[in-house]
Amino acid sequence: EPALLALASDRNWPLKFFSGDELKAQSVPNPSAVVAAEVGCPSVAEAAALSAAGSGAELRLEKQISRGQPGEGAVTTAIAAAPQPWAPQRGHLHLIGAGPGALNQLTPAAQQALASSSAWVGYGLYLDLLEPLRRADQVRFDGQLTKEKERCQQALELARQGVVVALISSGESGMYGMAGLALEQWLALASQEQPNFSVHPGISAFQMAAARLGAPLMHDLCTISLSDRLTPWELIEQRLKAAAQGDFVVALYNPRSRDRHWQLGRAVELLLEHRPANTPAAICRQLSRSDEALQIHPLAELPLEAVDMFSLVLIGNSTTRFEHGQMVTPRGYPGAELS
Amino acid sequence: EPALLALASDRNWPLKFFSGDELKAQSVPNPSAVVAAEVGCPSVAEAAALSAAGSGAELRLEKQISRGQPGEGAVTTAIAAAPQPWAPQRGHLHLIGAGPGALNQLTPAAQQALASSSAWVGYGLYLDLLEPLRRADQVRFDGQLTKEKERCQQALELARQGVVVALISSGESGMYGMAGLALEQWLALASQEQPNFSVHPGISAFQMAAARLGAPLMHDLCTISLSDRLTPWELIEQRLKAAAQGDFVVALYNPRSRDRHWQLGRAVELLLEHRPANTPAAICRQLSRSDEALQIHPLAELPLEAVDMFSLVLIGNSTTRFEHGQMVTPRGYPGAELS
Repeated sequence: EPALLALASDRNWPLKFFSGDELKAQSVPNPSAVVAAEVGCPSVAEAAALSAAGSGAELRLEKQISRGQPGEGAVTTAIAAAPQPWAPQRGHLHLIGAGPGALNQLTPAAQQALASSSAWVGYGLYLDLLEPLRRADQVRFDGQLTKEKERCQQALELARQGVVVALISSGESGMYGMAGLALEQWLALASQEQPNFSVHPGISAFQMAAARLGAPLMHDLCTISLSDRLTPWELIEQRLKAAAQGDFVVALYNPRSRDRHWQLGRAVELLLEHRPANTPAAICRQLSRSDEALQIHPLAELPLEAVDMFSLVLIGNSTTRFEHGQMVTPRGYPGAELS
Repeated sequence: EPALLALASDRNWPLKFFSGDELKAQSVPNPSAVVAAEVGCPSVAEAAALSAAGSGAELRLEKQISRGQPGEGAVTTAIAAAPQPWAPQRGHLHLIGAGPGALNQLTPAAQQALASSSAWVGYGLYLDLLEPLRRADQVRFDGQLTKEKERCQQALELARQGVVVALISSGESGMYGMAGLALEQWLALASQEQPNFSVHPGISAFQMAAARLGAPLMHDLCTISLSDRLTPWELIEQRLKAAAQGDFVVALYNPRSRDRHWQLGRAVELLLEHRPANTPAAICRQLSRSDEALQIHPLAELPLEAVDMFSLVLIGNSTTRFEHGQMVTPRGYPGAELS
């Protein structure tokens, strides 16, 4: 197979392999008893072409044997037409986060991946953020909120057909984004159906928040999502207790929405068991967007009702202080000194 | 003061204010008993000019009163020469992380800040990573490894004099980087001496690692530095226990060096008390550099000696699996399903 592998890699063609049983299942115009005796199934080229083109395929070119110079061997080819469109290339699924909002926070690598994609799939609001980068020749597929699985399937199906696709999340695709769901669906495909798969890291909300607030993350940190849509609340509570005991700086994602109004208050209560009431806590809304708003309060007085689904809540550890408009967590602990 | 504030903001000039006591301490050529009776000190313009220019200043233009049209009021000016260079602008300290390595992971905002800076201050190895972006008119100040305080002081002093300065860390300046130390030194300055201060978020090693490994971060995560140079080991151990109990995906920074060889083993031991022996654990070396190397092992068999100071160790939570070369942490927990 080295020649086939090299050819496929060179031309960026998908290469598929089939078992004898898969080939035997195809009915072909030119079965061969000689071939059957040799390799265990009556057709290789025609059956493989039909298998590769999938259910409903039609053979368009019956098998042709091309021979080289004496001693060089031969190649048998057949061509089948697939009922589904199939680009003569291996597709690619690029996982992209739209970042916190501003386009100047998107890495050149992510911008390059967006530029190379013929199709952009995502929830409309996130696609809107990137719209200034979209060219007229790039197709936009708007999905519905909460229908993450559908969006993944659509993107993966396009990529499986040979399209270069950008699947777009808000924030960082690799953190509470689409990368995990897309990868799980990708893993469920037969390996010969898997398009190329790349995740492009991006700036997550906690980083943008930290940059705006000063330097609150200079020590160990954790991120916790308060959404109990996919995680039992007991487990979230266990994480909050651990974060409190470990004196981590804590970034709370999905801190509060219209339907989830009490979880944030409980989280604050748990953290207050292990850190001072005046620990600085920041509500960061619409980071790096035109209506960005930051508030810093003592943890015990955090105005919960000011927090909504466009907010991130960042809570200092026991050494974090608020001074001159800045939130800062010292890098060392008392007694330890940098030279 | 609105006119003074507007003028300073408009021209990007630094504006300094002084108390009567500070002004009284200056000896001036033209003290005025009238002024002393009116505002409590014998000189305003001359004393303020000398105070602003700092210790060793010399008065170059004695006080001049400029009157407008009748009814418009007057302005008194004086000019002093400072012994230290002082640019006629407010300086700026930009905190930049060089990112994981590749320049295409640096946000446009960070690149813009680098481009606007006349001076680049950092440890040589990190400056080298960004060297392809440096213009001939930008001065490079190479600092020594571990001399973080010195580098901060040098950068801040330049910015205080009116220079636009980039202070460069490896990775993300806001996470285990220079932002915190620089901000603490900035806070220690009198507010009229403080240059503008901006942190530019960047891609941290754990994000680059995650992108390369698949989707290991799809659930709550924490970062822990195993360096006990500034943090007592007992506290680090408390964090590790909390991370284990909270079932966080864990990114270990500074996991091992020549002098710190046993801490990583102890960390693995603590995590294994709460998660399966076959939990995927990745050693990520020299991420996005030319000699990048990734290894994934069951946590219980992590080859500690393969970890060095150029590595990050990323350890899955109890649901993380390794499949088809990819490390993936499901977004939901068993029983919870996305639509």
